[in-house]
Amino acid sequence: MAEKAHEIRLKSRPVGMPKAENFELAEVTLPEPKDGEVLVRNMWMSVDPYMRGRMYDRPSYVPPFQIGEALQGGAVGRIEKSNDARFKPGDLVESFLGWRDAFVSSAAPLTKLPASNVPPQAFLGVLGMPGMTAYTSFHRIGDPKPGNVVFVSGAAGAVGATVCQIAKIRECSVVASAGSDAKLAWLKSVGVEAGVNYKTCGDLLKAVQAAAPKGIDIYFDNVGGEHLEVALEVARPFARFIECGMISIYNDEKPTPGPRNMAYIVGKRIKMQGFIVSDFIDMREQFLTEMTQWVLDGRVKSEETIENGIANAPKAFLNLFTGGNTGKMLVKLD
Amino acid sequence: MAEKAHEIRLKSRPVGMPKAENFELAEVTLPEPKDGEVLVRNMWMSVDPYMRGRMYDRPSYVPPFQIGEALQGGAVGRIEKSNDARFKPGDLVESFLGWRDAFVSSAAPLTKLPASNVPPQAFLGVLGMPGMTAYTSFHRIGDPKPGNVVFVSGAAGAVGATVCQIAKIRECSVVASAGSDAKLAWLKSVGVEAGVNYKTCGDLLKAVQAAAPKGIDIYFDNVGGEHLEVALEVARPFARFIECGMISIYNDEKPTPGPRNMAYIVGKRIKMQGFIVSDFIDMREQFLTEMTQWVLDGRVKSEETIENGIANAPKAFLNLFTGGNTGKMLVKLD
Repeated sequence: MAEKAHEIRLKSRPVGMPKAENFELAEVTLPEPKDGEVLVRNMWMSVDPYMRGRMYDRPSYVPPFQIGEALQGGAVGRIEKSNDARFKPGDLVESFLGWRDAFVSSAAPLTKLPASNVPPQAFLGVLGMPGMTAYTSFHRIGDPKPGNVVFVSGAAGAVGATVCQIAKIRECSVVASAGSDAKLAWLKSVGVEAGVNYKTCGDLLKAVQAAAPKGIDIYFDNVGGEHLEVALEVARPFARFIECGMISIYNDEKPTPGPRNMAYIVGKRIKMQGFIVSDFIDMREQFLTEMTQWVLDGRVKSEETIENGIANAPKAFLNLFTGGNTGKMLVKLD
Repeated sequence: MAEKAHEIRLKSRPVGMPKAENFELAEVTLPEPKDGEVLVRNMWMSVDPYMRGRMYDRPSYVPPFQIGEALQGGAVGRIEKSNDARFKPGDLVESFLGWRDAFVSSAAPLTKLPASNVPPQAFLGVLGMPGMTAYTSFHRIGDPKPGNVVFVSGAAGAVGATVCQIAKIRECSVVASAGSDAKLAWLKSVGVEAGVNYKTCGDLLKAVQAAAPKGIDIYFDNVGGEHLEVALEVARPFARFIECGMISIYNDEKPTPGPRNMAYIVGKRIKMQGFIVSDFIDMREQFLTEMTQWVLDGRVKSEETIENGIANAPKAFLNLFTGGNTGKMLVKLD
């Protein structure tokens, strides 16, 4: 009997801040899996800021989402039917095939989750793309040394919170910026020394100067904008700026002017480098080995913000831009 | 008999664009050189854009110039009297002891010029600080590969013109931006493929896109400002931005907003890195060896713009900011 499934499609391209009306929930009928195919029922879907970029119709490192098609995002699910020798029913798999509660696909693009004691949704967070983003870039671009001062913006997000904890493991001290006192309290509970609530602190520069009186050696940038200008201001000579994202400007309808103090890049000999997690694919094994151990040892903790049901995936996405999540934003399916 | 000498002093700190009245010429009486001291008569003085930064009273990688004191800058001169075993009259020396036509100093901070067939003022240009600035950063930060497209702003300056020619030696193609057709003609005579006259081209972005239709792999930034924004726009993935200077904003009285397209640093995985030539002091021998050979072989040519007499040093400096020089700006003393 043909099964029904649901997916979230891009209905129209957002202009500025995305709205619920840019998305639509659609019901589809799943075909029977053919030879080499499997039917997967998703358990968890990942909700990530970078998806905003794919909603623009412009050339980028990944093709734009298409109107009327399911949004692509990471998901973890369970094999329900298999016509492929690699998988059997009950296997947990990670996919990148769309915001769908169930789907039929070739087995080729699916990855079986390793047997482990961590919950499966961790492979969308601290052991998944956000965790690998944090781990690889912090080491490769940040080049952390014991005693370095690390400033992290968007510090309570999935990537930021992981960066903060890796920095502590590497014997750095951490100044975290986040948008609520509750988020900062959680970050302090995992070892962050100083927190700045950018929504209530008033003058951001003064607040960061007070939190990092000796300046910063590493800036992990998730937000761009004013935070980036402040980081340039407080940077020590030879500071490394890990340019992971600029969520503060993703929804801008007009281009926003950049930092007014770019000349510090010269005078302070700053290295500012952008990246995409796949650039560091050579570090994947090292990341999985070390991070799995840290998670099992309790040295890296993760928070999750969970919305229930595929219909709420757009809401979860919109909440990313208003600071609605602490840690990894997930949609739980059932 | 006590000898007279002349020096250029900072009379007042410039606000915005420096003016002649910010400088003064003073006559001083030279003491007799004591034990371990020498009397040097300068032949050439170097005039460099970075000196503008030292006219601000602010913390930086070098201390600010002081009001009423001689400006510091590179010079090449001849030993006239020596009470130090290392030097004898007639020796050519490089110093960094101020804009003076003659001076008495300890011999310690002086460097004897190597015996060579290149004219002595080359040690203030292509074989001196500007040449080493170009050589070290282009290799260390730029990481050039054959076939790379290199965009150079301020391309007719002492550093820029050297970068253009090193890039050609490294089998890159070069797009040069300069402020006059005569400068661009000179750059084309040394192998630069495409030139943009930023003063007459109209839309700078369109002009650079036309000159580099496939985009750029390396941007050598001498000017900052609009050129930097254009470079971000045309950068290919993994482009390297060598942040040598931002002359376009050195004289700004108010902070100028930065590029409006900073988000490309993330999406295009751009590395943007500032430096100071002394950061790469480990490359000095390699630089001198290779560059001397290139100069003698005629593979690296240099232009000079010369003002005569110490009284004209301020004028030479002011001309740097209005594009008055092609190649190295020098003051010839006699």
